[in-house]
Amino acid sequence: MAQIIYGIHPIKEALNSSHLHFEKIYISTPKPHAPIQSILDLANKRHIPVVFTTKEVLEQMAHGGVHQSVVGILKEFPYADIEKILLDWKKGGQKALLFILDGIEDPQNLGSLIRTALGCGAHGIIIPKHRATGITPAVIKASAGAAVHLPIAKVVNIVTTIDDLKREGIWVYGASGEAKSLIYDLDLNIDVAIVIGAEGKGIRPLVKKKCDRLFSIPMKGPLSSFNASVSGGMILYEVMRQRELFLEEGKR
Amino acid sequence: MAQIIYGIHPIKEALNSSHLHFEKIYISTPKPHAPIQSILDLANKRHIPVVFTTKEVLEQMAHGGVHQSVVGILKEFPYADIEKILLDWKKGGQKALLFILDGIEDPQNLGSLIRTALGCGAHGIIIPKHRATGITPAVIKASAGAAVHLPIAKVVNIVTTIDDLKREGIWVYGASGEAKSLIYDLDLNIDVAIVIGAEGKGIRPLVKKKCDRLFSIPMKGPLSSFNASVSGGMILYEVMRQRELFLEEGKR
Repeated sequence: MAQIIYGIHPIKEALNSSHLHFEKIYISTPKPHAPIQSILDLANKRHIPVVFTTKEVLEQMAHGGVHQSVVGILKEFPYADIEKILLDWKKGGQKALLFILDGIEDPQNLGSLIRTALGCGAHGIIIPKHRATGITPAVIKASAGAAVHLPIAKVVNIVTTIDDLKREGIWVYGASGEAKSLIYDLDLNIDVAIVIGAEGKGIRPLVKKKCDRLFSIPMKGPLSSFNASVSGGMILYEVMRQRELFLEEGKR
Repeated sequence: MAQIIYGIHPIKEALNSSHLHFEKIYISTPKPHAPIQSILDLANKRHIPVVFTTKEVLEQMAHGGVHQSVVGILKEFPYADIEKILLDWKKGGQKALLFILDGIEDPQNLGSLIRTALGCGAHGIIIPKHRATGITPAVIKASAGAAVHLPIAKVVNIVTTIDDLKREGIWVYGASGEAKSLIYDLDLNIDVAIVIGAEGKGIRPLVKKKCDRLFSIPMKGPLSSFNASVSGGMILYEVMRQRELFLEEGKR
């Protein structure tokens, strides 16, 4: 299915991405200002057809979203193969960091988690095919464009995917409020995949059972959990911190 | 000014808070189910008038938000005094942790930051009176109710407030993308106030100048920053981690 993407920044990010492809770009301003002109130049360079139309048409296409006079139609979001993600990891020669998002439904949270994963150097993201938000234009926008830079695999069965990762020597650690292991106790300077569950519900039981280890993030006060995108940020930060520290110590 | 709050969970949190006060509660379901009944019981116990009305009235009051058949009118959001926050900190006898949010405009981010601060044991939050979102019902909802548990001070001038904090022996550290000090290099097991700036814009120059130290969070890939609520989560996590580690070592 074709997908709609809109707004100056997301369209630019998508045009600069090597793994997103536009069907067409629609522009509603007759006198393009600099940001729109740079989009026109990029579209021209990439041989993407540009159509000039009215504001009303764009508003309908963007379903009322803030389109800033530019809307693009993408060919289907190019999900990555898990095999390709693993191959790239092995070629790169760094410790694996994968992020399994088990059923995140809120596009804001999903986008924010993708943005964080890209910034923390993850090799890719794995989401389930059913029972979760896919990579919609709202998710791409919430990710500040990160979704077009990071390989994202959509798999039918997270449980069998975890088995595949384990066979590659990757440890699978899941965030779970009731776990006795604390985030501080984890050694994350290993090949690892981190599993984050849906807000409120957490990781599904069968997926949880497959994890090599569960960990919790200690929390003070009356609430029972951090926001899913914040929990994800904390654990990926901890991975980055431990690896950075290890590299520093190696230099001494 | 009176404020509107809606949804079962936020209303319950607010009813259980000792520092929020309701003017009235409106309910649109003639046959209350268990969650609404528990709200009725709490309202009764707290002598808050309850009005039964129509769905349409609630929809108007909630401006189209998901009200779940219950809307409350709060007396003005009870901002805290900075003096009171400092007094409570001194009484508690723990290392200070304050969170200064310099101009966060997105209610989702502001709510998420408040939720994180409560979970990481912050003593309070400081926001500027102008050029930022106040504690609106959308913020309370995005904070999962945390805003009704954590003291939040609204100050006219962040710069003079920082001077006040410094006089109390509190160090002020600001997050800034260009800073050479990395988050890993900070000693956070001290009395500290963390400053986070607006998304995109960062901390305002005059406020930045007042900070004792600026730090950045290293980031890989093409994007220039993490989401403000994720950056805030990472630094508060780092504070919690260092303090926890220190306590652990003390026990040995």
